[in-house]
Amino acid sequence: MAGEKDPLPPGSTIGILGGGQLGRMLAMAAAQIGFKTHIFSPEEDCPAFQVASDGTLAAYDDEAALTTFAGYADVITYEFENVPARAAEILSPLKPVRPAPKALAIAQDRLIEKNFLQENGIDTAPFVSVADRAGAAFAAGKIGVPGILKTRRFGYDGKGQAKITEGKLAAAAFDLIGAPAIYEGFVDFEREISIIAARGLNGTVESYDVVENIHEHHILSQTLVPARIGKGESDTAKAIATRVLSALDYVGVMGIEMFLTRDLRVLVNEFAPRVHNSGHWTLDACGISQFEQHIRAICGWPLGSPSRHSDAIMRNLIGDDVFSWPKLVTEPNAHLHLYGKSEARPARKMGHVTYLFAKGHRPEK
Amino acid sequence: MAGEKDPLPPGSTIGILGGGQLGRMLAMAAAQIGFKTHIFSPEEDCPAFQVASDGTLAAYDDEAALTTFAGYADVITYEFENVPARAAEILSPLKPVRPAPKALAIAQDRLIEKNFLQENGIDTAPFVSVADRAGAAFAAGKIGVPGILKTRRFGYDGKGQAKITEGKLAAAAFDLIGAPAIYEGFVDFEREISIIAARGLNGTVESYDVVENIHEHHILSQTLVPARIGKGESDTAKAIATRVLSALDYVGVMGIEMFLTRDLRVLVNEFAPRVHNSGHWTLDACGISQFEQHIRAICGWPLGSPSRHSDAIMRNLIGDDVFSWPKLVTEPNAHLHLYGKSEARPARKMGHVTYLFAKGHRPEK
Repeated sequence: MAGEKDPLPPGSTIGILGGGQLGRMLAMAAAQIGFKTHIFSPEEDCPAFQVASDGTLAAYDDEAALTTFAGYADVITYEFENVPARAAEILSPLKPVRPAPKALAIAQDRLIEKNFLQENGIDTAPFVSVADRAGAAFAAGKIGVPGILKTRRFGYDGKGQAKITEGKLAAAAFDLIGAPAIYEGFVDFEREISIIAARGLNGTVESYDVVENIHEHHILSQTLVPARIGKGESDTAKAIATRVLSALDYVGVMGIEMFLTRDLRVLVNEFAPRVHNSGHWTLDACGISQFEQHIRAICGWPLGSPSRHSDAIMRNLIGDDVFSWPKLVTEPNAHLHLYGKSEARPARKMGHVTYLFAKGHRPEK
Repeated sequence: MAGEKDPLPPGSTIGILGGGQLGRMLAMAAAQIGFKTHIFSPEEDCPAFQVASDGTLAAYDDEAALTTFAGYADVITYEFENVPARAAEILSPLKPVRPAPKALAIAQDRLIEKNFLQENGIDTAPFVSVADRAGAAFAAGKIGVPGILKTRRFGYDGKGQAKITEGKLAAAAFDLIGAPAIYEGFVDFEREISIIAARGLNGTVESYDVVENIHEHHILSQTLVPARIGKGESDTAKAIATRVLSALDYVGVMGIEMFLTRDLRVLVNEFAPRVHNSGHWTLDACGISQFEQHIRAICGWPLGSPSRHSDAIMRNLIGDDVFSWPKLVTEPNAHLHLYGKSEARPARKMGHVTYLFAKGHRPEK
């Protein structure tokens, strides 16, 4: 009988919770190396259904549908971190869930996440838990302003956050958020950087080069590859990635967002227990993309090399940006990726474009 | 109203006749740039159904199914050249069929193909049409031995061919083939080479670098990128590609197989009006693969750059070769592609692996 640690053979089916663009690109990477995929998504017109071998259209709390889904899959993974913990509980006894639900539970709650990082000796911005209005005012006083009040759960792309510039505004901001929160000291950073790292079933860790991210309106706008940082900071970021993944006994790809402070300290902002937007450039600039790397990891295959053959700039196509496709496809070094979404709503990630450059020849932005 | 020459917008549906690995890789390339695909295949368990947005399971002579299929598609293409001419006739008035059925009709018949090449001033091996036993004997006498008697239609991977080493064996060989044939003088070649070229709707032609092919048992075994030939021969091959595609007013990717003779002449052996096995290396060694290039061409998009960032060796995984996947995935420069076929029958193409090397650093084989 095949053991838990044996590599899953091609032809096996990978169950993916979530049907967005990350699920779509995971499904395509899985198909390339001979796997079938089964997407579980509550949205009928989702990007991943278009490229997957099979799909289940059901809510994440539909226990019967989850059980049936587990029956189709040989291994289960997810493309976003807000899968209900209960879904993971139902699935875990039935089939291997990778990465393990523990990483999901930690990443879903900013307070637990920050505590986990601190316990593992990883630097973060100063933070304090905020349970109510009074707590918010206390936190702003203790940590100082400016600071950021963030909902502990379900925040993304800047949603559920408020920048606090005066202590007396903290209580009102808590009212707006209206949920358990965390107050973090504002980091006056030199650069926002991130690292995409993978850990295999055998414990091997492989990290792609550290990249630099530029956000607009709290949404990732551009990723510059590599980051404009020194070797020392890059090595620190890679060491942090190895520590986080190992501490979680993690299996799969993780995206870790960090700040490089003006005094060159590397602070972890947050991690996403999944493939990450700031790793999309790996599709075009590397032999093995973050998507194939994740599939390899969760299937117990050896990790691929994260080396890259080019420098790159990845630009997200948000909302109406997607209508620039006729121009983008005339640019010889542009590699276009569109997600098959029918409606270009504002702030919606519709696709991305990666510009490749010979190493050392990337323009500044 | 959008004109015939306007680029097809993302979200449109590409109809693909044929559900094999070429259809699978075309569907994945189409999805990357935001197209939906609809596969028409007579085989239920076919590689392309696993990754396509939609599919029709029907025979190529099912006229009602073809008509319905055309209704789903915005443009129609094919992944192999033996689509019945009647299918193309039914589809052409309904939706744009690219490349146009003319190229299909020519490539389906070795005699018509060779005549077309000759009329366009392109060198081939000497050949003569063979209609019966007596014609076979006559041909062997006229062209000389050794020579190859080949069925005019439906031959591939060496099927429907016989090498004639003595003139008196030609008539018996014709009996075995039992169909209209062509007798070709045997080319004592220095190298077998091929070129993957694309022509856009606006007439632009882009060719990938000329590659070298090594066959075993008449099936492509390895492709070496680039071919071990001089610049002069490479330029000749590219000029031939431009002439063939332009003469056909071709739209899409074509694979052209050629011989480089010992006296350094370039002879065309045959062409395939579709993406080609000897172009699979473009998935890993180029920014734009032959599959994306074909989708761009048939959708009226500008062609992408065919430049490559690496040298490469592509090896087909035939039959049981596929069981070497656990070893292949440990090799750091190996890029594995599996086609999702459930049964590894002898001579069946199950996948391929591309080894990348820095330019100028490829080993001999």
